[in-house]
Amino acid sequence: MLYIIGLGLCDERDITIRGLQAVKNSTRVYLEAYTSILMVQKERLEAFYEKSLILADRDLVESQSDEILHNADKEDVSLLVVGDPFGATTHTDILLRARALNVPTRVIHNASIMNAVGACGLQLYNFGQTVSLVFFTETWKPDSFYDRIKENADLDLHTLVLLDIKVKEQSEENLARGRKIYEPPRYMTIPLAVTQLLEIESMRQTGALSPDTTLAIALSRVGGGDEHQRIVAGTLSELVNHPSDAFEVEYAETFAVDKERWREVARTSYGCALE
Amino acid sequence: MLYIIGLGLCDERDITIRGLQAVKNSTRVYLEAYTSILMVQKERLEAFYEKSLILADRDLVESQSDEILHNADKEDVSLLVVGDPFGATTHTDILLRARALNVPTRVIHNASIMNAVGACGLQLYNFGQTVSLVFFTETWKPDSFYDRIKENADLDLHTLVLLDIKVKEQSEENLARGRKIYEPPRYMTIPLAVTQLLEIESMRQTGALSPDTTLAIALSRVGGGDEHQRIVAGTLSELVNHPSDAFEVEYAETFAVDKERWREVARTSYGCALE
Repeated sequence: MLYIIGLGLCDERDITIRGLQAVKNSTRVYLEAYTSILMVQKERLEAFYEKSLILADRDLVESQSDEILHNADKEDVSLLVVGDPFGATTHTDILLRARALNVPTRVIHNASIMNAVGACGLQLYNFGQTVSLVFFTETWKPDSFYDRIKENADLDLHTLVLLDIKVKEQSEENLARGRKIYEPPRYMTIPLAVTQLLEIESMRQTGALSPDTTLAIALSRVGGGDEHQRIVAGTLSELVNHPSDAFEVEYAETFAVDKERWREVARTSYGCALE
Repeated sequence: MLYIIGLGLCDERDITIRGLQAVKNSTRVYLEAYTSILMVQKERLEAFYEKSLILADRDLVESQSDEILHNADKEDVSLLVVGDPFGATTHTDILLRARALNVPTRVIHNASIMNAVGACGLQLYNFGQTVSLVFFTETWKPDSFYDRIKENADLDLHTLVLLDIKVKEQSEENLARGRKIYEPPRYMTIPLAVTQLLEIESMRQTGALSPDTTLAIALSRVGGGDEHQRIVAGTLSELVNHPSDAFEVEYAETFAVDKERWREVARTSYGCALE
Protein backbone atom coordinates (compact mmCIF):
# COMPACT_ATOMS: atom_id res chain seq x y z
CA MET A 1 0.00 0.00 0.00
CA LEU A 2 1.21 3.50 -0.81
CA TYR A 3 0.11 5.96 1.85
CA ILE A 4 0.22 9.65 1.06
CA ILE A 5 -0.03 11.31 4.43
CA GLY A 6 -0.68 14.96 5.20
CA LEU A 7 1.43 16.26 8.09
CA GLY A 8 -0.57 19.41 8.72
CA LEU A 9 1.04 22.78 9.16
CA CYS A 10 3.29 23.03 12.16
CA ASP A 11 5.32 20.23 13.68
CA GLU A 12 5.59 16.50 14.40
CA ARG A 13 2.43 16.46 16.52
CA ASP A 14 0.14 17.57 13.70
CA ILE A 15 0.06 14.17 12.07
CA THR A 16 -3.20 12.26 12.68
CA ILE A 17 -3.40 9.03 14.65
CA ARG A 18 -4.29 7.27 11.39
CA GLY A 19 -1.25 8.80 9.72
CA LEU A 20 1.10 7.88 12.54
CA GLN A 21 -0.10 4.28 12.48
CA ALA A 22 0.61 4.09 8.75
CA VAL A 23 4.11 5.56 9.28
CA LYS A 24 4.86 3.02 12.00
CA ASN A 25 3.79 0.16 9.73
CA SER A 26 5.77 1.31 6.70
CA THR A 27 9.07 -0.19 5.62
CA ARG A 28 10.10 3.05 3.90
CA VAL A 29 8.94 6.58 4.69
CA TYR A 30 9.62 9.49 2.33
CA LEU A 31 9.33 13.14 3.31
CA GLU A 32 8.36 15.51 0.50
CA ALA A 33 9.89 18.85 1.32
CA TYR A 34 9.97 21.10 -1.70
CA THR A 35 6.49 22.59 -2.05
CA SER A 36 6.06 23.57 1.57
CA ILE A 37 7.88 23.25 4.86
CA LEU A 38 7.04 22.46 8.44
CA MET A 39 8.31 24.61 11.30
CA VAL A 40 10.65 21.87 12.51
CA GLN A 41 13.52 19.90 11.04
CA LYS A 42 13.46 16.34 9.74
CA GLU A 43 15.35 14.98 12.75
CA ARG A 44 12.57 16.04 15.10
CA LEU A 45 10.01 14.18 13.00
CA GLU A 46 12.25 11.10 12.96
CA ALA A 47 12.64 11.09 16.72
CA PHE A 48 8.90 11.43 17.28
CA TYR A 49 7.83 8.90 14.63
CA GLU A 50 10.69 6.55 15.55
CA LYS A 51 11.42 6.11 11.85
CA SER A 52 14.15 7.24 9.48
CA LEU A 53 12.83 9.55 6.79
CA ILE A 54 14.11 9.64 3.23
CA LEU A 55 14.04 13.19 1.83
CA ALA A 56 12.10 13.26 -1.43
CA ASP A 57 12.83 16.18 -3.72
CA ARG A 58 10.76 17.23 -6.71
CA ASP A 59 12.76 15.02 -9.04
CA LEU A 60 12.12 11.90 -6.96
CA VAL A 61 8.39 12.50 -6.51
CA GLU A 62 7.63 13.68 -10.03
CA SER A 63 10.06 11.78 -12.25
CA GLN A 64 11.47 8.92 -10.21
CA SER A 65 8.33 7.84 -8.44
CA ASP A 66 8.96 4.20 -9.34
CA GLU A 67 11.66 4.23 -6.66
CA ILE A 68 9.07 5.27 -4.09
CA LEU A 69 6.59 2.71 -5.44
CA HIS A 70 9.11 -0.14 -5.43
CA ASN A 71 7.58 -3.18 -3.70
CA ALA A 72 4.63 -1.09 -2.51
CA ASP A 73 2.29 -3.82 -3.75
CA LYS A 74 3.74 -6.11 -1.08
CA GLU A 75 4.66 -3.78 1.77
CA ASP A 76 3.57 -0.41 3.12
CA VAL A 77 5.38 2.68 1.92
CA SER A 78 4.52 6.20 3.11
CA LEU A 79 5.06 9.56 1.45
CA LEU A 80 4.73 12.42 3.94
CA VAL A 81 3.53 15.73 2.63
CA VAL A 82 3.33 19.06 4.47
CA GLY A 83 -0.29 20.22 4.78
CA ASP A 84 -2.79 18.04 2.91
CA PRO A 85 -1.87 15.71 0.02
CA PHE A 86 -4.37 17.63 -2.10
CA GLY A 87 -3.67 21.03 -0.62
CA ALA A 88 -1.90 23.52 -2.81
CA THR A 89 -0.10 20.80 -4.78
CA THR A 90 -1.90 17.69 -5.86
CA HIS A 91 -0.13 14.39 -5.89
CA THR A 92 -2.20 12.94 -8.66
CA ASP A 93 0.83 11.97 -10.76
CA ILE A 94 2.18 9.46 -8.28
CA LEU A 95 -1.34 8.19 -7.54
CA LEU A 96 -1.96 7.52 -11.25
CA ARG A 97 1.44 5.85 -11.52
CA ALA A 98 0.59 3.65 -8.52
CA ARG A 99 -2.71 2.71 -10.13
CA ALA A 100 -0.90 1.73 -13.33
CA LEU A 101 1.38 -0.56 -11.30
CA ASN A 102 -1.57 -2.04 -9.36
CA VAL A 103 -0.29 -0.60 -6.11
CA PRO A 104 -3.18 0.13 -3.73
CA THR A 105 -3.18 3.66 -2.36
CA ARG A 106 -4.61 5.50 0.59
CA VAL A 107 -4.62 9.25 1.14
CA ILE A 108 -4.67 10.49 4.74
CA HIS A 109 -5.89 14.05 4.85
CA ASN A 110 -4.84 16.88 7.11
CA ALA A 111 -5.11 20.63 7.45
CA SER A 112 -3.66 22.80 4.70
CA ILE A 113 -3.45 26.54 4.34
CA MET A 114 -6.43 26.25 1.94
CA ASN A 115 -8.75 25.76 4.93
CA ALA A 116 -6.61 26.96 7.85
CA VAL A 117 -6.56 30.46 6.34
CA GLY A 118 -9.94 30.77 8.06
CA ALA A 119 -7.88 31.48 11.19
CA CYS A 120 -7.70 35.13 10.12
CA GLY A 121 -11.44 35.48 10.61
CA LEU A 122 -12.48 35.65 6.96
CA GLN A 123 -15.13 33.14 5.94
CA LEU A 124 -13.92 30.50 3.50
CA TYR A 125 -17.20 30.97 1.63
CA ASN A 126 -16.06 34.45 0.68
CA PHE A 127 -12.87 33.41 -1.05
CA GLY A 128 -12.58 33.15 -4.80
CA GLN A 129 -9.77 31.50 -6.69
CA THR A 130 -6.47 30.92 -4.91
CA VAL A 131 -3.30 32.20 -6.58
CA SER A 132 0.43 31.72 -6.20
CA LEU A 133 2.96 34.52 -6.27
CA VAL A 134 6.44 33.52 -7.43
CA PHE A 135 9.73 35.33 -6.91
CA PHE A 136 10.12 37.87 -9.71
CA THR A 137 13.42 38.12 -11.55
CA GLU A 138 14.63 40.97 -13.75
CA THR A 139 13.24 39.28 -16.82
CA TRP A 140 10.45 37.06 -15.49
CA LYS A 141 7.50 38.62 -13.73
CA PRO A 142 4.52 36.31 -14.30
CA ASP A 143 1.44 38.35 -13.48
CA SER A 144 -1.63 36.24 -14.23
CA PHE A 145 -2.36 36.24 -10.48
CA TYR A 146 -3.37 39.88 -10.94
CA ASP A 147 -6.27 38.96 -13.23
CA ARG A 148 -7.48 36.39 -10.73
CA ILE A 149 -7.34 38.92 -7.85
CA LYS A 150 -9.27 41.39 -9.99
CA GLU A 151 -11.89 38.78 -10.94
CA ASN A 152 -12.34 37.92 -7.29
CA ALA A 153 -12.50 41.57 -6.23
CA ASP A 154 -15.10 42.28 -8.91
CA LEU A 155 -17.25 39.60 -7.25
CA ASP A 156 -16.49 40.99 -3.75
CA LEU A 157 -14.40 37.95 -2.95
CA HIS A 158 -11.17 37.60 -1.02
CA THR A 159 -8.10 36.05 -2.61
CA LEU A 160 -5.72 33.68 -0.88
CA VAL A 161 -2.25 34.51 -2.22
CA LEU A 162 0.30 31.76 -1.58
CA LEU A 163 3.88 32.98 -1.40
CA ASP A 164 6.70 31.23 -3.18
CA ILE A 165 9.30 29.11 -1.50
CA LYS A 166 12.50 27.99 -3.20
CA VAL A 167 14.02 24.83 -1.84
CA LYS A 168 16.78 22.96 -3.65
CA GLU A 169 16.72 25.26 -6.67
CA GLN A 170 19.67 25.51 -9.06
CA SER A 171 21.02 28.80 -10.38
CA GLU A 172 20.62 29.30 -14.13
CA GLU A 173 24.34 28.76 -14.54
CA ASN A 174 24.42 25.54 -12.54
CA LEU A 175 21.31 24.34 -14.33
CA ALA A 176 22.88 25.05 -17.72
CA ARG A 177 26.09 23.30 -16.77
CA GLY A 178 24.25 20.36 -15.27
CA ARG A 179 25.82 20.88 -11.88
CA LYS A 180 23.71 19.64 -9.02
CA ILE A 181 24.61 22.59 -6.80
CA TYR A 182 21.66 24.14 -5.05
CA GLU A 183 20.93 27.65 -3.86
CA PRO A 184 20.11 28.30 -0.19
CA PRO A 185 16.36 28.01 0.54
CA ARG A 186 14.34 31.21 0.22
CA TYR A 187 10.92 32.05 1.60
CA MET A 188 9.07 35.07 0.26
CA THR A 189 8.46 37.68 2.91
CA ILE A 190 5.23 39.65 3.20
CA PRO A 191 6.91 42.96 2.27
CA LEU A 192 8.38 41.44 -0.89
CA ALA A 193 5.02 39.90 -1.78
CA VAL A 194 3.23 43.23 -1.35
CA THR A 195 5.94 45.03 -3.33
CA GLN A 196 5.44 42.59 -6.21
CA LEU A 197 1.66 43.00 -6.07
CA LEU A 198 2.00 46.78 -6.25
CA GLU A 199 4.60 46.53 -9.02
CA ILE A 200 2.06 44.78 -11.23
CA GLU A 201 -0.68 47.21 -10.19
CA SER A 202 1.51 50.12 -11.25
CA MET A 203 1.91 48.48 -14.67
CA ARG A 204 -1.74 47.51 -15.13
CA GLN A 205 -3.35 50.45 -13.35
CA THR A 206 -6.85 48.99 -13.09
CA GLY A 207 -7.15 49.98 -9.46
CA ALA A 208 -7.72 46.37 -8.37
CA LEU A 209 -5.01 46.94 -5.76
CA SER A 210 -4.27 50.19 -4.03
CA PRO A 211 -1.50 50.91 -1.50
CA ASP A 212 -3.76 52.89 0.79
CA THR A 213 -7.26 51.54 0.28
CA THR A 214 -6.76 47.81 -0.23
CA LEU A 215 -6.87 45.91 3.06
CA ALA A 216 -4.91 42.73 3.42
CA ILE A 217 -4.15 40.19 6.10
CA ALA A 218 -0.71 38.63 6.29
CA LEU A 219 -0.49 35.19 7.86
CA SER A 220 2.62 33.25 8.73
CA ARG A 221 3.15 29.96 10.51
CA VAL A 222 -0.59 29.29 10.65
CA GLY A 223 -1.42 26.48 13.05
CA GLY A 224 1.64 27.12 15.16
CA GLY A 225 -0.28 28.49 18.13
CA ASP A 226 0.08 31.95 19.57
CA GLU A 227 3.77 31.52 20.20
CA HIS A 228 4.49 30.99 16.47
CA GLN A 229 1.54 32.05 14.38
CA ARG A 230 1.54 35.66 13.26
CA ILE A 231 -1.42 37.48 11.72
CA VAL A 232 -1.08 41.15 10.79
CA ALA A 233 -3.78 43.17 9.09
CA GLY A 234 -3.45 46.51 7.36
CA THR A 235 -3.44 48.41 4.12
CA LEU A 236 -0.96 47.20 1.54
CA SER A 237 1.36 50.12 2.26
CA GLU A 238 1.25 49.37 5.97
CA LEU A 239 2.16 45.77 5.34
CA VAL A 240 5.00 46.66 3.01
CA ASN A 241 6.56 49.00 5.54
CA HIS A 242 5.81 48.17 9.10
CA PRO A 243 6.31 44.53 9.97
CA SER A 244 8.93 43.82 7.38
CA ASP A 245 11.95 43.15 9.54
CA ALA A 246 9.85 41.71 12.31
CA PHE A 247 8.60 38.93 10.05
CA GLU A 248 12.03 37.97 8.92
CA VAL A 249 13.56 38.28 12.35
CA GLU A 250 10.88 36.16 13.95
CA TYR A 251 10.98 33.56 11.25
CA ALA A 252 14.73 33.19 11.44
CA GLU A 253 14.55 33.09 15.22
CA THR A 254 13.57 29.42 14.98
CA PHE A 255 17.11 28.74 13.90
CA ALA A 256 18.87 31.05 16.35
CA VAL A 257 21.42 29.67 18.78
CA ASP A 258 20.21 32.11 21.45
CA LYS A 259 16.69 33.31 20.76
CA GLU A 260 16.66 35.99 23.44
CA ARG A 261 19.86 37.54 22.20
CA TRP A 262 18.76 37.26 18.58
CA ARG A 263 15.64 39.29 19.34
CA GLU A 264 17.53 41.78 21.47
CA VAL A 265 20.08 42.55 18.76
CA ALA A 266 17.36 42.76 16.12
CA ARG A 267 15.51 45.24 18.32
CA THR A 268 18.40 47.45 19.38
CA SER A 269 20.86 47.30 16.49
CA TYR A 270 18.48 46.83 13.57
CA GLY A 271 15.54 48.80 14.94
CA CYS A 272 13.02 46.02 14.36
CA ALA A 273 9.58 46.57 15.87
CA LEU A 274 9.26 43.27 17.73
CA GLU A 275 6.69 42.62 20.42
CA MET B 1 -7.34 27.36 27.82
CA LEU B 2 -10.16 26.76 25.35
CA TYR B 3 -9.09 24.35 22.62
CA ILE B 4 -11.14 24.17 19.45
CA ILE B 5 -10.03 20.94 17.84
CA GLY B 6 -10.72 19.73 14.33
CA LEU B 7 -11.50 16.01 14.16
CA GLY B 8 -11.01 15.60 10.44
CA LEU B 9 -13.47 13.78 8.27
CA CYS B 10 -13.85 10.13 9.09
CA ASP B 11 -13.47 8.56 12.52
CA GLU B 12 -11.74 8.65 15.91
CA ARG B 13 -8.28 8.15 14.38
CA ASP B 14 -8.37 11.35 12.32
CA ILE B 15 -7.63 13.58 15.30
CA THR B 16 -4.03 14.86 15.39
CA ILE B 17 -1.54 13.95 18.10
CA ARG B 18 -1.68 17.57 19.27
CA GLY B 19 -5.47 17.41 19.40
CA LEU B 20 -5.51 14.12 21.30
CA GLN B 21 -3.08 15.51 23.88
CA ALA B 22 -5.34 18.51 24.43
CA VAL B 23 -8.39 16.23 24.82
CA LYS B 24 -6.58 14.08 27.39
CA ASN B 25 -5.63 17.17 29.41
CA SER B 26 -9.10 18.73 29.37
CA THR B 27 -11.48 18.60 32.30
CA ARG B 28 -14.49 18.95 29.97
CA VAL B 29 -14.74 17.94 26.31
CA TYR B 30 -17.64 19.07 24.12
CA LEU B 31 -18.51 17.53 20.76
CA GLU B 32 -20.11 19.87 18.27
CA ALA B 33 -22.35 17.77 16.08
CA TYR B 34 -24.83 19.88 14.17
CA THR B 35 -22.96 21.34 11.20
CA SER B 36 -21.32 18.13 10.10
CA ILE B 37 -20.98 14.54 11.24
CA LEU B 38 -18.28 11.92 11.48
CA MET B 39 -18.80 8.39 10.18
CA VAL B 40 -18.82 6.94 13.68
CA GLN B 41 -20.88 7.44 16.81
CA LYS B 42 -19.95 9.43 19.91
CA GLU B 43 -19.36 6.29 21.97
CA ARG B 44 -16.54 5.16 19.70
CA LEU B 45 -14.81 8.50 20.09
CA GLU B 46 -15.22 8.29 23.87
CA ALA B 47 -13.70 4.83 24.03
CA PHE B 48 -10.70 5.85 21.94
CA TYR B 49 -10.08 9.20 23.65
CA GLU B 50 -10.82 7.70 27.08
CA LYS B 51 -12.99 10.73 27.85
CA SER B 52 -16.71 11.38 28.21
CA LEU B 53 -17.97 13.79 25.57
CA ILE B 54 -20.70 16.35 26.15
CA LEU B 55 -22.84 16.80 23.03
CA ALA B 56 -22.96 20.47 22.07
CA ASP B 57 -25.87 21.51 19.90
CA ARG B 58 -26.18 24.79 18.02
CA ASP B 59 -27.88 26.46 20.97
CA LEU B 60 -25.06 25.61 23.35
CA VAL B 61 -22.25 26.68 21.01
CA GLU B 62 -23.87 29.82 19.67
CA SER B 63 -25.99 31.15 22.53
CA GLN B 64 -24.86 29.41 25.69
CA SER B 65 -21.14 29.44 25.10
CA ASP B 66 -20.48 30.77 28.59
CA GLU B 67 -21.26 27.28 29.83
CA ILE B 68 -18.49 25.90 27.63
CA LEU B 69 -16.15 28.70 28.71
CA HIS B 70 -16.87 28.27 32.42
CA ASN B 71 -13.56 28.09 34.30
CA ALA B 72 -11.62 27.83 31.04
CA ASP B 73 -9.26 30.53 32.30
CA LYS B 74 -8.12 28.08 35.00
CA GLU B 75 -8.44 24.67 33.37
CA ASP B 76 -8.39 23.19 29.88
CA VAL B 77 -11.68 22.77 28.03
CA SER B 78 -11.96 21.32 24.51
CA LEU B 79 -14.60 21.78 21.86
CA LEU B 80 -14.37 19.09 19.17
CA VAL B 81 -15.50 20.02 15.70
CA VAL B 82 -15.89 17.73 12.68
CA GLY B 83 -13.48 18.76 9.91
CA ASP B 84 -11.52 21.94 10.63
CA PRO B 85 -12.62 24.59 13.15
CA PHE B 86 -12.55 27.10 10.29
CA GLY B 87 -13.84 24.74 7.64
CA ALA B 88 -17.31 25.36 6.34
CA THR B 89 -18.47 26.93 9.60
CA THR B 90 -16.26 29.34 11.48
CA HIS B 91 -16.25 29.35 15.23
CA THR B 92 -15.38 33.00 15.54
CA ASP B 93 -18.32 33.75 17.88
CA ILE B 94 -17.06 31.57 20.69
CA LEU B 95 -13.46 32.70 20.10
CA LEU B 96 -14.48 36.34 20.43
CA ARG B 97 -16.50 35.53 23.54
CA ALA B 98 -13.47 33.75 25.02
CA ARG B 99 -11.31 36.77 24.28
CA ALA B 100 -13.83 39.03 26.04
CA LEU B 101 -13.61 36.79 29.11
CA ASN B 102 -9.79 36.69 28.97
CA VAL B 103 -9.81 32.96 28.28
CA PRO B 104 -6.77 31.94 26.23
CA THR B 105 -7.63 29.94 23.10
CA ARG B 106 -5.89 27.57 20.76
CA VAL B 107 -7.22 26.25 17.46
CA ILE B 108 -5.99 22.84 16.31
CA HIS B 109 -6.51 22.47 12.60
CA ASN B 110 -7.44 19.40 10.62
CA ALA B 111 -8.67 18.38 7.19
CA SER B 112 -12.03 19.68 6.03
CA ILE B 113 -13.97 19.08 2.86
CA MET B 114 -12.74 22.52 1.71
CA ASN B 115 -9.33 20.99 0.98
CA ALA B 116 -10.03 17.26 0.93
CA VAL B 117 -12.31 17.78 -2.09
CA GLY B 118 -9.03 17.64 -4.03
CA ALA B 119 -9.39 13.86 -3.68
CA CYS B 120 -11.61 13.90 -6.77
CA GLY B 121 -8.67 14.99 -8.89
CA LEU B 122 -9.70 18.59 -9.49
CA GLN B 123 -7.08 21.18 -8.55
CA LEU B 124 -8.05 23.39 -5.63
CA TYR B 125 -6.64 26.32 -7.60
CA ASN B 126 -9.46 25.90 -10.09
CA PHE B 127 -12.29 26.27 -7.62
CA GLY B 128 -14.20 29.50 -7.21
CA GLN B 129 -16.56 30.33 -4.41
CA THR B 130 -17.99 27.50 -2.32
CA VAL B 131 -21.76 27.32 -1.90
CA SER B 132 -24.23 25.52 0.33
CA LEU B 133 -27.39 23.88 -0.89
CA VAL B 134 -30.19 23.66 1.67
CA PHE B 135 -33.23 21.40 1.67
CA PHE B 136 -35.97 23.13 -0.33
CA THR B 137 -39.47 23.28 1.07
CA GLU B 138 -42.69 24.04 -0.81
CA THR B 139 -42.37 27.71 0.02
CA TRP B 140 -38.63 28.22 0.59
CA LYS B 141 -36.19 27.60 -2.22
CA PRO B 142 -33.21 29.87 -1.62
CA ASP B 143 -31.32 29.99 -4.90
CA SER B 144 -28.44 32.43 -4.53
CA PHE B 145 -26.07 29.45 -4.94
CA TYR B 146 -27.07 29.46 -8.60
CA ASP B 147 -25.57 32.92 -9.17
CA ARG B 148 -22.34 31.80 -7.53
CA ILE B 149 -22.14 28.67 -9.71
CA LYS B 150 -22.74 30.80 -12.79
CA GLU B 151 -20.09 33.34 -11.77
CA ASN B 152 -17.62 30.51 -11.25
CA ALA B 153 -18.55 28.83 -14.53
CA ASP B 154 -18.15 32.12 -16.40
CA LEU B 155 -14.56 32.19 -15.11
CA ASP B 156 -14.06 28.49 -15.99
CA LEU B 157 -13.97 27.57 -12.31
CA HIS B 158 -15.36 24.59 -10.47
CA THR B 159 -17.83 25.02 -7.61
CA LEU B 160 -17.80 23.02 -4.42
CA VAL B 161 -21.45 22.54 -3.45
CA LEU B 162 -21.92 21.51 0.17
CA LEU B 163 -25.10 19.55 0.85
CA ASP B 164 -27.37 20.32 3.77
CA ILE B 165 -27.65 18.20 6.85
CA LYS B 166 -30.43 18.58 9.39
CA VAL B 167 -29.57 17.45 12.88
CA LYS B 168 -31.74 18.26 15.89
CA GLU B 169 -34.15 20.43 13.93
CA GLN B 170 -37.65 21.21 15.19
CA SER B 171 -40.73 21.07 13.01
CA GLU B 172 -42.45 24.42 12.47
CA GLU B 173 -45.24 23.32 14.76
CA ASN B 174 -42.94 22.21 17.57
CA LEU B 175 -40.91 25.38 17.16
CA ALA B 176 -44.04 27.54 17.36
CA ARG B 177 -45.28 25.70 20.44
CA GLY B 178 -41.87 25.83 22.08
CA ARG B 179 -41.67 22.04 22.31
CA LYS B 180 -38.15 20.70 22.31
CA ILE B 181 -39.06 17.75 20.13
CA TYR B 182 -36.64 17.13 17.28
CA GLU B 183 -37.04 15.64 13.82
CA PRO B 184 -34.94 12.64 12.80
CA PRO B 185 -31.60 13.66 11.21
CA ARG B 186 -31.59 14.10 7.44
CA TYR B 187 -28.67 14.14 5.02
CA MET B 188 -29.17 15.45 1.51
CA THR B 189 -28.54 12.80 -1.11
CA ILE B 190 -26.76 13.47 -4.39
CA PRO B 191 -29.93 12.83 -6.47
CA LEU B 192 -31.93 15.32 -4.40
CA ALA B 193 -29.13 17.87 -4.67
CA VAL B 194 -28.97 17.50 -8.45
CA THR B 195 -32.76 17.70 -8.68
CA GLN B 196 -32.73 20.97 -6.76
CA LEU B 197 -29.93 22.37 -8.96
CA LEU B 198 -31.90 21.53 -12.08
CA GLU B 199 -35.12 22.92 -10.60
CA ILE B 200 -33.46 26.33 -10.27
CA GLU B 201 -31.91 26.03 -13.73
CA SER B 202 -35.35 25.39 -15.21
CA MET B 203 -36.58 28.59 -13.55
CA ARG B 204 -33.59 30.76 -14.45
CA GLN B 205 -32.78 29.22 -17.83
CA THR B 206 -29.34 30.80 -18.24
CA GLY B 207 -27.79 27.51 -19.29
CA ALA B 208 -25.30 27.60 -16.42
CA LEU B 209 -26.36 24.04 -15.63
CA SER B 210 -27.49 21.47 -18.14
CA PRO B 211 -28.70 17.92 -17.46
CA ASP B 212 -26.71 16.44 -20.31
CA THR B 213 -23.71 18.66 -20.82
CA THR B 214 -22.75 19.73 -17.30
CA LEU B 215 -20.28 17.32 -15.74
CA ALA B 216 -20.25 16.89 -11.99
CA ILE B 217 -18.44 14.78 -9.44
CA ALA B 218 -20.31 13.50 -6.42
CA LEU B 219 -18.24 12.80 -3.31
CA SER B 220 -19.35 11.16 -0.12
CA ARG B 221 -17.50 10.12 3.01
CA VAL B 222 -14.27 11.71 1.77
CA GLY B 223 -11.29 10.60 3.81
CA GLY B 224 -12.87 7.30 4.70
CA GLY B 225 -10.57 5.21 2.55
CA ASP B 226 -11.63 3.01 -0.31
CA GLU B 227 -14.00 0.98 1.83
CA HIS B 228 -16.10 4.07 2.69
CA GLN B 229 -15.29 6.92 0.35
CA ARG B 230 -17.39 7.12 -2.79
CA ILE B 231 -16.66 9.29 -5.80
CA VAL B 232 -18.93 9.14 -8.84
CA ALA B 233 -18.55 11.33 -11.89
CA GLY B 234 -21.08 11.95 -14.63
CA THR B 235 -23.45 14.36 -16.27
CA LEU B 236 -26.07 15.84 -13.97
CA SER B 237 -28.75 13.57 -15.43
CA GLU B 238 -26.56 10.52 -14.86
CA LEU B 239 -26.02 11.51 -11.24
CA VAL B 240 -29.70 12.15 -10.64
CA ASN B 241 -30.65 8.72 -11.91
CA HIS B 242 -27.99 6.14 -11.52
CA PRO B 243 -26.41 5.97 -8.08
CA SER B 244 -29.35 7.28 -6.17
CA ASP B 245 -30.32 4.32 -4.04
CA ALA B 246 -26.79 3.09 -3.79
CA PHE B 247 -25.70 6.25 -2.02
CA GLU B 248 -28.45 6.08 0.51
CA VAL B 249 -28.13 2.37 1.04
CA GLU B 250 -24.40 2.56 1.59
CA TYR B 251 -24.63 5.54 3.84
CA ALA B 252 -27.27 3.98 6.01
CA GLU B 253 -25.33 0.73 6.11
CA THR B 254 -23.12 2.25 8.82
CA PHE B 255 -26.08 1.97 11.13
CA ALA B 256 -27.27 -1.47 10.06
CA VAL B 257 -27.49 -4.31 12.55
CA ASP B 258 -26.34 -6.77 9.91
CA LYS B 259 -24.45 -5.03 7.11
CA GLU B 260 -24.32 -8.05 4.83
CA ARG B 261 -28.03 -8.62 5.03
CA TRP B 262 -28.74 -4.90 4.66
CA ARG B 263 -26.84 -4.83 1.36
CA GLU B 264 -28.34 -8.09 0.19
CA VAL B 265 -31.93 -6.89 0.70
CA ALA B 266 -31.16 -3.54 -0.87
CA ARG B 267 -29.74 -5.34 -3.91
CA THR B 268 -32.42 -7.98 -4.39
CA SER B 269 -35.61 -6.38 -3.10
CA TYR B 270 -34.97 -2.74 -3.91
CA GLY B 271 -32.91 -3.27 -7.05
CA CYS B 272 -30.05 -1.05 -5.88
CA ALA B 273 -26.94 -1.10 -8.04
CA LEU B 274 -24.40 -1.82 -5.31
CA GLU B 275 -20.85 -2.95 -5.96
